[in-house]
Amino acid sequence: MLRPEDPGAAPQILSRLAQAYADVRRATRALAAPLSAEDCCVQSMPDASPAKWHLAHTTWFFETFVLEPHEPGFAPFHPAFRVLYNSYYQGVGARHPRAERGLITRPALQEVLDYRTQVDARMQALLARPLDAQLQALIELGLQHEQQHQELLLTDIKHLLSCNPLAPAYAEAAYAEAASAEAAYAGAAMQDAPALAALRWLPLAPGLRAIGHAGEGFAFDNETPRHRVYLNGCEIASRPVSNAEYQAFVDSGAYAEPAHWLAEGWDWLQSRGRTAPLYWQRSEDGGWAEFTLHGLQPLQSAQPVVHLSYYEADAYARWAGARLPTEAEWECAALEFAGEVPVQAAARLHPASMKSADAGFCSAPGEVWEWTQSSYAPYPGFAPAAGAVGEYNGKFMVNQYVLRGGSCASPPGHVRPSYRNFFPTVACWQFTGLRLARDL
Amino acid sequence: MLRPEDPGAAPQILSRLAQAYADVRRATRALAAPLSAEDCCVQSMPDASPAKWHLAHTTWFFETFVLEPHEPGFAPFHPAFRVLYNSYYQGVGARHPRAERGLITRPALQEVLDYRTQVDARMQALLARPLDAQLQALIELGLQHEQQHQELLLTDIKHLLSCNPLAPAYAEAAYAEAASAEAAYAGAAMQDAPALAALRWLPLAPGLRAIGHAGEGFAFDNETPRHRVYLNGCEIASRPVSNAEYQAFVDSGAYAEPAHWLAEGWDWLQSRGRTAPLYWQRSEDGGWAEFTLHGLQPLQSAQPVVHLSYYEADAYARWAGARLPTEAEWECAALEFAGEVPVQAAARLHPASMKSADAGFCSAPGEVWEWTQSSYAPYPGFAPAAGAVGEYNGKFMVNQYVLRGGSCASPPGHVRPSYRNFFPTVACWQFTGLRLARDL
Amino acid sequence: MLRPEDPGAAPQILSRLAQAYADVRRATRALAAPLSAEDCCVQSMPDASPAKWHLAHTTWFFETFVLEPHEPGFAPFHPAFRVLYNSYYQGVGARHPRAERGLITRPALQEVLDYRTQVDARMQALLARPLDAQLQALIELGLQHEQQHQELLLTDIKHLLSCNPLAPAYAEAAYAEAASAEAAYAGAAMQDAPALAALRWLPLAPGLRAIGHAGEGFAFDNETPRHRVYLNGCEIASRPVSNAEYQAFVDSGAYAEPAHWLAEGWDWLQSRGRTAPLYWQRSEDGGWAEFTLHGLQPLQSAQPVVHLSYYEADAYARWAGARLPTEAEWECAALEFAGEVPVQAAARLHPASMKSADAGFCSAPGEVWEWTQSSYAPYPGFAPAAGAVGEYNGKFMVNQYVLRGGSCASPPGHVRPSYRNFFPTVACWQFTGLRLARDL
Amino acid sequence: MLRPEDPGAAPQILSRLAQAYADVRRATRALAAPLSAEDCCVQSMPDASPAKWHLAHTTWFFETFVLEPHEPGFAPFHPAFRVLYNSYYQGVGARHPRAERGLITRPALQEVLDYRTQVDARMQALLARPLDAQLQALIELGLQHEQQHQELLLTDIKHLLSCNPLAPAYAEAAYAEAASAEAAYAGAAMQDAPALAALRWLPLAPGLRAIGHAGEGFAFDNETPRHRVYLNGCEIASRPVSNAEYQAFVDSGAYAEPAHWLAEGWDWLQSRGRTAPLYWQRSEDGGWAEFTLHGLQPLQSAQPVVHLSYYEADAYARWAGARLPTEAEWECAALEFAGEVPVQAAARLHPASMKSADAGFCSAPGEVWEWTQSSYAPYPGFAPAAGAVGEYNGKFMVNQYVLRGGSCASPPGHVRPSYRNFFPTVACWQFTGLRLARDL
Repeated sequence: MLRPEDPGAAPQILSRLAQAYADVRRATRALAAPLSAEDCCVQSMPDASPAKWHLAHTTWFFETFVLEPHEPGFAPFHPAFRVLYNSYYQGVGARHPRAERGLITRPALQEVLDYRTQVDARMQALLARPLDAQLQALIELGLQHEQQHQELLLTDIKHLLSCNPLAPAYAEAAYAEAASAEAAYAGAAMQDAPALAALRWLPLAPGLRAIGHAGEGFAFDNETPRHRVYLNGCEIASRPVSNAEYQAFVDSGAYAEPAHWLAEGWDWLQSRGRTAPLYWQRSEDGGWAEFTLHGLQPLQSAQPVVHLSYYEADAYARWAGARLPTEAEWECAALEFAGEVPVQAAARLHPASMKSADAGFCSAPGEVWEWTQSSYAPYPGFAPAAGAVGEYNGKFMVNQYVLRGGSCASPPGHVRPSYRNFFPTVACWQFTGLRLARDL
Repeated sequence: MLRPEDPGAAPQILSRLAQAYADVRRATRALAAPLSAEDCCVQSMPDASPAKWHLAHTTWFFETFVLEPHEPGFAPFHPAFRVLYNSYYQGVGARHPRAERGLITRPALQEVLDYRTQVDARMQALLARPLDAQLQALIELGLQHEQQHQELLLTDIKHLLSCNPLAPAYAEAAYAEAASAEAAYAGAAMQDAPALAALRWLPLAPGLRAIGHAGEGFAFDNETPRHRVYLNGCEIASRPVSNAEYQAFVDSGAYAEPAHWLAEGWDWLQSRGRTAPLYWQRSEDGGWAEFTLHGLQPLQSAQPVVHLSYYEADAYARWAGARLPTEAEWECAALEFAGEVPVQAAARLHPASMKSADAGFCSAPGEVWEWTQSSYAPYPGFAPAAGAVGEYNGKFMVNQYVLRGGSCASPPGHVRPSYRNFFPTVACWQFTGLRLARDL
Repeated sequence: MLRPEDPGAAPQILSRLAQAYADVRRATRALAAPLSAEDCCVQSMPDASPAKWHLAHTTWFFETFVLEPHEPGFAPFHPAFRVLYNSYYQGVGARHPRAERGLITRPALQEVLDYRTQVDARMQALLARPLDAQLQALIELGLQHEQQHQELLLTDIKHLLSCNPLAPAYAEAAYAEAASAEAAYAGAAMQDAPALAALRWLPLAPGLRAIGHAGEGFAFDNETPRHRVYLNGCEIASRPVSNAEYQAFVDSGAYAEPAHWLAEGWDWLQSRGRTAPLYWQRSEDGGWAEFTLHGLQPLQSAQPVVHLSYYEADAYARWAGARLPTEAEWECAALEFAGEVPVQAAARLHPASMKSADAGFCSAPGEVWEWTQSSYAPYPGFAPAAGAVGEYNGKFMVNQYVLRGGSCASPPGHVRPSYRNFFPTVACWQFTGLRLARDL
Repeated sequence: MLRPEDPGAAPQILSRLAQAYADVRRATRALAAPLSAEDCCVQSMPDASPAKWHLAHTTWFFETFVLEPHEPGFAPFHPAFRVLYNSYYQGVGARHPRAERGLITRPALQEVLDYRTQVDARMQALLARPLDAQLQALIELGLQHEQQHQELLLTDIKHLLSCNPLAPAYAEAAYAEAASAEAAYAGAAMQDAPALAALRWLPLAPGLRAIGHAGEGFAFDNETPRHRVYLNGCEIASRPVSNAEYQAFVDSGAYAEPAHWLAEGWDWLQSRGRTAPLYWQRSEDGGWAEFTLHGLQPLQSAQPVVHLSYYEADAYARWAGARLPTEAEWECAALEFAGEVPVQAAARLHPASMKSADAGFCSAPGEVWEWTQSSYAPYPGFAPAAGAVGEYNGKFMVNQYVLRGGSCASPPGHVRPSYRNFFPTVACWQFTGLRLARDL
């Protein structure tokens, strides 16, 4: 997003970081605006955090890592927050148990908003001073970190609302697509929906490539170092799998047929009693509806399928005679077949339909995170940053799988070919879908 | 509380019930007044319910059992509430899972308060009409039911606040006792505290007695029918066990000595890692502090010990060379040695100290619920009421133990000798203590 | 069984105890005779113990409580056995975890049999000497203890074999009843089976009674002291509930109807997915079969229903418009309506049919344990024995319910009116049934 | 091991397969020879299987996959065995629950041995006939499968015996090493032990390589297809980490320092309360002892450390300033630095010490399985075999990590550079250790 500048440079340069700070912080607050204090307080499962916690924890990051060592005469907003809003940084000390984040009714939402306001003012005071490159980079990391939590805030509140039998909407605003053409096809057979872009197979030739962050702009440590990989060659789909395609899998009885599933995936299915993706439910007319941030909506055939676990993505690929791509294949294809990437103004609340006019690899850039078959592991030569912020990525490099792309809920700037998202195989409350690949 | 009246009686008679309705409903709302919407929404464990749920469920009782069959042109406030706020009445139909009551951020607290307001208006309209005795009894049951939830609201919010590392207070108001004499003894050795009433042993002679509701005033079905019992004779303590006495048990190492405990109680201790009562914690000066609805407070020696499980009550009694009384012994003693029972104006937030001036059995009437060794079982000839309200008590008559007396948080009118409270042996978030008995 | 004798009495008196010792010990061994070393080693659930453990633990009792303090120059058979075969006696010290008893493949079965042989020889040497009354009582307690384990050995092995999809039989020997008349009715409608004794209601008048061990013969401490109780009067059934009667309950859909069940019982049903008693399964012809120690057998209509949890017994009684008796009612009725009790030579492997010729209360004495509604609690004035053997009964007096009567698998001499068996409400692997009572 | 032959070839060729069959089957039986029927029956945890189950399941493989489709007039040894001894092949149908394998006391061990004898005779009859290449390959797969179970039989019985507080030995035979020189050093400081080979860093240059089965001899499907990989270059240790080296890690307090551990690894440590590797325990002299198949033995400093979880291997590497190798690095190094691999006659019961005379990469070939940082995934172009045997490897390719090398308990022939073993990160009951790598 921003490159560090020489501390001696003109003030208008530095104010770019200050402006970015203000923008990101304002965006987080805007995401919480449609929510009541009650919505912001509750935790629906250990994996998800309350919105209030996201608001406070992202602030804690700046207070703890930036202000505490760099602000003259630092005094904490509240001494207990150091423990209360630490996520997992062992280097910082104790932390409140993750599964009990929802029990903290006090401080109230308003007090947390006051915490944000105060820290923002102190941060802007600090940002008005010359900052060395290392401190600029740290603040930039804090902003990227906060943007990651913006996406989590949306997926976490979506999960919470989905647990409510009233199926309340996060945003009552008109459901753009449903109001448009697609709604007309709701009753029609899905294969007739004209809006869905045809799936094309893009050839990825064997050969040496390089992947990883190339040096321009911000990147997380886990995207580095850039390094060589050898691809054995494959074909990769021009777009993610659609709802219509996935529904054919569901309707074929696949959730009752062990042959399609990894052994562990089958056990997971049985233990959850899952017979369709997380937020799908039968509608009264026998079709499918999907819980969204706009409430319960008819399933849209041309939208990418979303909220899949790794097991579901893998099983679909197997059923379709294909496989998941590796993360190296994905990254190389994204660069080689880059289409026109529409500039995305802000996070949206649901993946858009994949229109037939789309072309190139990124036919639906940043609509859904795409599972790859690559386990999340350090790149050759990877070294985490020193100090507590070094706990950012490396300590999670086991038993998780890499997702590439970016979702409708990803903040602008977080959709880049080298970005490595990662989740355990059972996670399906994120906007997770898949793209097919197949061996030559 | 109230006896049903002839429907043809004068209107001022009926308005007694209307007045009682207004009083009880107002009291519930007052208990929630110090709480934020966030406080009211969260559930800290499956056994406890959110305050908002208590506010709604008690209203649901009147809407479902009274208005639905008796209000002309009945229409529900919200059709989903029938399921959402059903506690356990199978006869009414489906119910929201108990452990997920805290996930319902919507309806908001304000909407639930509106629900109360609307139902109250409709109930007052109904109460202005002549009602037959059966309907009066049903409304009276609804009020008693709501009063039981008033006590639960306090104990549930206490548990929630206790999970918060900030140890927030429900009521910041001056901690009456702490501000008075006792505070002076905080540092002194406990046995020197002059306020504690001496424990006397009251003799209960062998012989036939009768227990159970005698017919005057309201009683729950589980207090009936009145029936004969034979007591083999014992001595029973003049007051509950105090903090000072229980602390001697703790300080003796009793939580590490299996000989004092029931086998199941010892296993429970180990599984929880408990080394003292639920809300006790070491204070910085090496003494004990106790989490209360007024926040963390120094342990008061002359107050009755509170928040004990059955296992802890039983172990203390064994250690003290005594035993728990049976519920029949308790009830008979309460009648035979009835002291002057001070009129209690309202529920209070913590048990009062047991003053040396107290006399008779009820030296601290209604300060703590007292565990008895009696399993909760139907009285001879017991028959539950017909219909869904018949699920009120009888279906829980297994694996629970009877508690007698009443606590500081019990509403006025709920402290009577025949009242049977009941909880599983592991419950300790209620205001539960004990009184000793011993065989002759 | 035996009364202690004056140590100075003639040797033939003492040899009665020696003879009893030899008989009981031989009987235990005989029960294990049909079992392989593999059968004897495995533990099918934490509640059940391996047969080898029963063989060793009963021996440990004599070695630890009798030989260790009383044998000159005592040396243990194996020093590790003190921990390995301690069941729960905290006074003795450490113990092997209960749920891991099945992991002890060594010592081998043969070594445990050698342990028995050696301890038996040492015990007989001790029994040949004059013994004081206290030691005689202790040995008698050890024999009664071993007899209790004989019954557990059978129920535990039955559970283990029931987990085997091959449904193997403990004893292949001809299934006495199945080979006789009843087999002819297997296909006929159950109500036509002529062998079932008609159920009569025996009146139990209100009034003062006394229950508890009266002083003649052996009794466990929990049967004492004898004390007065007041009965409010009821009617009690002349025999336990039969398979035919219970099948009508099952066939009525009762396992899907919450109204019949205690709230906790209903939750238990759901969590287990239980739709019939533990060992029942549908036979190929659409009828019911039952797993027995003789393998899978057609359900016999005139046999008492068996292997019920407390919840099932309670639900049946409610469905039948009756209730479970209290233990005091049971004991008084057993004495007042005592029929002719056939002398039982040895434990049998399955309850016998209740023949129409039976009369009096004990129409099927000792065929099934009968659940009562009485929680297991100390009698007034109860005091456990001193020392580790005092842990025998008292420490389990919570959250268990009393069963009266005795089962086909109970050793001769264990069927007496004052005997108090006890199990948690979920237990159904014992030979547990029920008898109805109803208020006047 | 064997290559398929032309069915028309001379009988002595075919008899090579028959001979191999006889050898492998005899070896399995020999491994069970020191075990009692009780030892063979019990299951110590869901991951481990009883020895009797291994004996039966490996036989089931031949009966189900070879005899059933190829034996004229096939009739099963026992119809229930098809379900009882199916491990996980969904294509074959139902299977007995994995966690309940230890409850099958019948068939008895002897009956399973008879099952083996009968199937062996039928297999030898079939092997005496001309077999096409596909059938030969299937039988070869069955033998490799059985050899894998030979190793599991040893690790599973080791775990079972380790649960026994008597710490019994599988083989009482002299503990070769303990009886020799090393025993002398038991009391000495570990760094003085002269036998430990010095650790050298072997350079692995960047560049393209090929890995995977090269076409000679047997390989499992997961070793194919051979394919190109690019290595970024590293150094790899000449031998696995030793007990002395790992003990330094333990003694440094590493099990209490979260900075060394993956987040998930730290949580695992806490949940198990682990403070040292699985089978380590403090000896009375303050040193360390290790449970082995020869019983409890003093820890030998020059032996490779063994029974580590992935988390422990990763944490040690991090602490040592290194990392785990990838499986491609491991395989390439094994080929490039291949030392003289001693021919191993048979599986042994414990890893041998790493002698100072060792040279090259394989200084301790096949002593311990070595964790790599590579998640178990399909090779590019991987396709499982058709039919039920295709469930052999592919369905487990998620959330497991690849181990390379081979252990003391691996059968001869199973130690080859392309062999891919795999286990979940928490597994530590296999003979699992590690070798360090580091970036250039």
